[in-house]
Amino acid sequence: MPEVRAYAAQSPTSGLAPITIVRREPRPDDVVIDVAYCGICHTDLSQVRDEWGSAEYPMVPGHEITGIVRAVGSAVTDLAVGARVGVGCFVDGGCSRGRCDREHEHRHLADLVATYNGREHDGAPTYGGYSRSIVVKRPYVLALPDALPLDAAAPLLCAGISLYSPLVHWRVGPGSRVAVVGLGGLGHLGVKLARAFGADVTVLSRTDAKRSDALALGAHGYHATSDPDTFTRLTGRFDLVLVTVGATLDWNAYLRLLRPEGTLVLIGMPDAPGSVNAFELLTQRKSISGSAIGSIPETARMLEFCARHGVAADIEVIPIQDLAAAYARLDRGDVRYRFVIDMQSLDRAP
Amino acid sequence: MPEVRAYAAQSPTSGLAPITIVRREPRPDDVVIDVAYCGICHTDLSQVRDEWGSAEYPMVPGHEITGIVRAVGSAVTDLAVGARVGVGCFVDGGCSRGRCDREHEHRHLADLVATYNGREHDGAPTYGGYSRSIVVKRPYVLALPDALPLDAAAPLLCAGISLYSPLVHWRVGPGSRVAVVGLGGLGHLGVKLARAFGADVTVLSRTDAKRSDALALGAHGYHATSDPDTFTRLTGRFDLVLVTVGATLDWNAYLRLLRPEGTLVLIGMPDAPGSVNAFELLTQRKSISGSAIGSIPETARMLEFCARHGVAADIEVIPIQDLAAAYARLDRGDVRYRFVIDMQSLDRAP
Repeated sequence: MPEVRAYAAQSPTSGLAPITIVRREPRPDDVVIDVAYCGICHTDLSQVRDEWGSAEYPMVPGHEITGIVRAVGSAVTDLAVGARVGVGCFVDGGCSRGRCDREHEHRHLADLVATYNGREHDGAPTYGGYSRSIVVKRPYVLALPDALPLDAAAPLLCAGISLYSPLVHWRVGPGSRVAVVGLGGLGHLGVKLARAFGADVTVLSRTDAKRSDALALGAHGYHATSDPDTFTRLTGRFDLVLVTVGATLDWNAYLRLLRPEGTLVLIGMPDAPGSVNAFELLTQRKSISGSAIGSIPETARMLEFCARHGVAADIEVIPIQDLAAAYARLDRGDVRYRFVIDMQSLDRAP
Repeated sequence: MPEVRAYAAQSPTSGLAPITIVRREPRPDDVVIDVAYCGICHTDLSQVRDEWGSAEYPMVPGHEITGIVRAVGSAVTDLAVGARVGVGCFVDGGCSRGRCDREHEHRHLADLVATYNGREHDGAPTYGGYSRSIVVKRPYVLALPDALPLDAAAPLLCAGISLYSPLVHWRVGPGSRVAVVGLGGLGHLGVKLARAFGADVTVLSRTDAKRSDALALGAHGYHATSDPDTFTRLTGRFDLVLVTVGATLDWNAYLRLLRPEGTLVLIGMPDAPGSVNAFELLTQRKSISGSAIGSIPETARMLEFCARHGVAADIEVIPIQDLAAAYARLDRGDVRYRFVIDMQSLDRAP
């Protein structure tokens, strides 16, 4: 079986270091992908450190993968060697057993096989995109439109779909007023995507520091949430408020920014439960909801949409040898706006 | 100006007693209604006791009103003397000033004139349905379909629309699985209405005490929430969970009963903020929302729907002289399922 260079954590505190992993021989429905780029998702930090209590080591993170098809199994007829492809947060699901359709399989967590720190249905551990190549079942490999660059498209596979899906679900379009709370890896794609959907887009960020960035990304408005006037001035303004930060905010304050029947959508996983005042929900039929990733068919639609509208992530490309520094910077929010690892760097001496 | 017999509270602790109030001379667009019946809503208790901090006295409660048109203003051409009519929770709104459409005016609380304990746009206090007659602007008077009895239809004007509106909004129909939490004035109408929409209906009640009632009302299933197995057995089952109780429940436990993309809707106003675990919302795009009353056009549609499907409240008709006893029983949930006051009783000696 092919040995592959990768970076792995060995414990919550080990940091990441070079490792050699074994990828399976391709089965008839498998695609072998040379990984070109892999985005660094905030999730990678949480998983490596076992913050969610489900870590298995060695752990090779990475679920924002782009690359080139090196080989395909005998049953794969619709992807050629040399094709540009992407892989996102999961590499198998419930649909293989016919229990749910492909638009919804990602909601059935028990059946979903995570791209890393997961278990295949046969029990084999999964290793992610911080590696030179990966073997993935054809239905979980996405064709990458020609217009999308391999590096800046990588973050679309997780961050991009996580913002695209709620914008579609809550029918954002011309006339919609959308607020994006937090301007990081998720938020900056939220601004670009909401703008591409034709919405009026406002960024709500803690301080004034990112104002010019937000406007350059396409936002129509920008308000600092540290200014208490912001919450008065924007009362009842938005159809949709997308919360992309991990901190647990005062959700009731953000609910008041919604129009009647508007929705507050949590995209980043908050670090603690939030308190909700039902009065805000009842009198104007407001909702609080959440959204995470999206289905494979929807991810394919997202990639086409991004290609058509020229949307991709603002990235900082790093060699994998700089991973520790990148993690430290991501930890303090110091990246504009997504780190992407150039996987050719794995071929160098560590 | 016409003097009218009524029952009023004079303070949070006074209880209710006979009073004479003055109704305005009908303006061109007014309808004068002889009140036949008025339902007792749990809100009446909260308002009389000033639990929401907005009470003005004397307070004449009552916003589940049915009656007969006694006179109409000169501009009213589509309602005849003798017509059977209803009045619900508000008697004026924002639409008179053209700022919002009639389907949404009830969401604009600042402009809404409550049927009682409110202020008309000219500053006059409003007095509700615990009275022999009421004067209401034509646009806020609902024609009562012939098939609906005056007494059992009264609770439809608040409790009925409060359940009908979310069932329509969340598109409940054949194939939908709906849970109704709590079997009281709101909940029993929720069961009847959801059943009439063709849904599969389950009642979740604290104990087993109301099982036979629930099934008789049309529920397909019944589970006691005091049985911890209930929450295991019903995991992932419902499209919509309607919470009709005032106590603040463990919302996360009820969110787990939803299917992916399902919604937990708060109908009863909880007595305290609730805590929400975002994980439940994010991974399966579940929502928590609320709903209260409905617009005048939607209330009209609700009345037609109820007439067509034979839906009305299960009631206990009382003379107004029994109000104190009824309030005490309602306070401890001892009514199956709505008290309705026969307003002819006001003509008797107190």
